[in-house]
Parts: sequence; C-alpha cells; structure tokens
Amino acid sequence: MPHLLQIDSSIQGDRSVSRKLTARARDTWLAAHPGGTVTYRDLGTAPVPHFDAIAAQARAVAPESRTPAQAASWALTEELVSEIRDADTVVLGLPLYNFGAPSSVKAWVDHVIAPGLSVDAETRAPLLGGREFVVLASRGGGYAEGTPRYGWDHAEPWLPHAIAATGLEPRFITAELTLAHSVPAMAALIPLAEASLADAERTIDTLWAPVPALA
Amino acid sequence: MPHLLQIDSSIQGDRSVSRKLTARARDTWLAAHPGGTVTYRDLGTAPVPHFDAIAAQARAVAPESRTPAQAASWALTEELVSEIRDADTVVLGLPLYNFGAPSSVKAWVDHVIAPGLSVDAETRAPLLGGREFVVLASRGGGYAEGTPRYGWDHAEPWLPHAIAATGLEPRFITAELTLAHSVPAMAALIPLAEASLADAERTIDTLWAPVPALA
Repeated sequence: MPHLLQIDSSIQGDRSVSRKLTARARDTWLAAHPGGTVTYRDLGTAPVPHFDAIAAQARAVAPESRTPAQAASWALTEELVSEIRDADTVVLGLPLYNFGAPSSVKAWVDHVIAPGLSVDAETRAPLLGGREFVVLASRGGGYAEGTPRYGWDHAEPWLPHAIAATGLEPRFITAELTLAHSVPAMAALIPLAEASLADAERTIDTLWAPVPALA
Repeated sequence: MPHLLQIDSSIQGDRSVSRKLTARARDTWLAAHPGGTVTYRDLGTAPVPHFDAIAAQARAVAPESRTPAQAASWALTEELVSEIRDADTVVLGLPLYNFGAPSSVKAWVDHVIAPGLSVDAETRAPLLGGREFVVLASRGGGYAEGTPRYGWDHAEPWLPHAIAATGLEPRFITAELTLAHSVPAMAALIPLAEASLADAERTIDTLWAPVPALA
C-alpha cells in the first residue's frame, strides 16, 4: 500500500502558502495512488522539542542504561524516523523565517539524524534513501539571481546537506514573493508572486500521474 | 558601567569548545573593563521556545488586546531584546549542529527580530546597532576552502543576514575540527584542530586591551 508522509511547519495557519502547497501535493498524490494512505505531522502547531543534552546522551548510552528522560527522547526520534521509513514519499512544507528554516524543522532534522535508525551506526551508510522527498518551500520576498536578496535564502542550501547522511535527497518546489499581497510596498510584485505560485502548483500537479478514470 | 551579555548555546556541557571560548572572552572582557558587569543566558540548557503562531500574533495586535499567552510571548521577546540593549558587547557561542545553527539560536533570533523593540515599527530602522557582537563559533569538521565540506557551514552565512534588521553585525571567531580529539578517523587532524583553537584563543585575547596593573 503506497504511503505518504505530509509534514507542515508554517506558523501562519490558513494564510500559509506552504500549507496550501503540501495540501495540493497530498491531493495530487492521493489521486495517483488509489488506496494510498497518509500520515500527517504538524511541526508548526506541535513542534518537536529542541535537540538537547538529554537527546544527545540518549544516542551515546546503551538502550538499557537510558534514564526515563533519555528513553522518552529516543522514543520521539524513533517515531520521527519510523514516519519517514514507512513512507514512499515525504512532502515537507518549508517556509523561510528570518532567512532560515523554522527552528522546528531544524529540531526535526536534529532528531532524525540518528545512528542505528537513519544512519548505520557502524558504517555510517544512509538508511532512508530510495524514497521521494519533495520540499514545498515558500518565501516572502524575491531571491532570484540578480535580486538584492540573492543568496539570503539559507534554508534551501542547508537542508540537502543536513539530511544527506540519511540518504534523503530533497527536491525543491518554491513559491516566492508570498508577502506581495499583504505588504503595500510590494504591491507591484503581485503579478510575479502569482506567476511563482502558479509555477509551483503546475509542477506539483505533474509530480504524480493521476490514475485515469474508468470509461 | 560597561556591560557584557554572554550567551551559550552548546548542548555539550563541559566538553563544549564554544563554551570554553565564550568563558575566555568573558574573562578577557572583564580584565579590560574593571567594574564591568555580565548577564549570562544559556540557550543550551534553557532554550527559548520555538517561535510560534502565538508569538506572531503577539506582534500583530495592540498590547491591550493580547491574550495572556500572547502577552507572555511578548514579555519573553522584551526580555531578550532588553538583554542586548543593556549590553555594550554581546558574546554568542555558536556550535554547528547538522550543518546549521542550533535550533535554540534560530528561535532566539526569531524572538529578537521584533518591530517596535529591535527594529523601528514604522521606518524599519535598526535599533540595536552600535554595539559589539562577537560570535565564538565551533564546528566539528573542517570547512576551509578546498576541503570537501567547504560551503557546508550554513550557520555563519545565515546569522549576519538573519540579524541584519536589528543593526547587529556579528564578528566571527571560529575554531574548527573540534571532533578530531574524539573521532578516531580524524586523529591525524589533531594538530590542525589545535592550531585552529589556539588561533581563536589568540584572537579573543586581543579583542579588548587589558587595563594595565598599577605599578
């Protein structure tokens, strides 16, 4: 049975562009995978805790020696990694806040990088490769080459490096200038924002071929 | 009275290199500023919460309309910004975890970027400029130009952009290859690691001229 993991991280609720894009991707994926199932995780409304000393110690001691706090932290890591391992496709919504990934996404990655679960403890071989990882990114401004903020998006370059040890290879689909509609000074950019969003949506729509309806 | 804000974010406790460096910077600063005072914040052991929808709403509503949760979030932001505003010098320990800043540092930045406190609400003028911001960075591997991991440190390029709106301009002092002592495969790199650490320490020692002892 095909399985999808859908993850959101925006804190913007209904106004979030990345949430609209992950929902569209989920619907497209479901149309192409009849009987497929979906697990949903919301890092925006229920963030995982910062990776802390307890989480680090949990990785360094034998399972039977873990304190209750270490065991709880390790259980969260196991849950997060299992969600990925159970999925054929992972879809992550990734807004840009202050030129970086949400701290909740950083914390999620920190938990997911786990020797023995996502990375082989001995050989360091990646254990989560061979599945799709589609990242639906949104950013309020414009970051194209030649613009003043070119190079200021530090989330997209970071994530492939951060997650590389697991074998996951993100494919980015990005909508930008999402603030054009709400920031008066950006009003002239609304057509560009709409084109960027339409582009992202078209790309999502072609990710998985829908199953033709029976005649 | 000169005032220093010292911030740590490592989760490694006594084994942390960045903590050693911030402590050295604090001692050097105190020797150069007799009667100077220090505020200490530990994002490693007591991280600030992820920036969430409540924090965002707290910035969007009038103070008298804030819910208790929004008011509490805004009070944290005020506390963090006040700590910076009260300081002539800010020293931040910044380890590199999974090729990015600790999520606790990202959350700290997200809280600190606050219209009306760190950035003028009308003009967007920066309100925290004119003070020293020394970042004592540590990273386990080697990231110099020409090495395989060149370009994989996404914390140092991110922070100046993330904090720019406030007027804070980080100066980085970095010790790298800090894992050479504990990872057997990196043993040959120990001399380079020691040189990098010694370099960082020397640079710290020259940041503030000590007050000469009276003869």
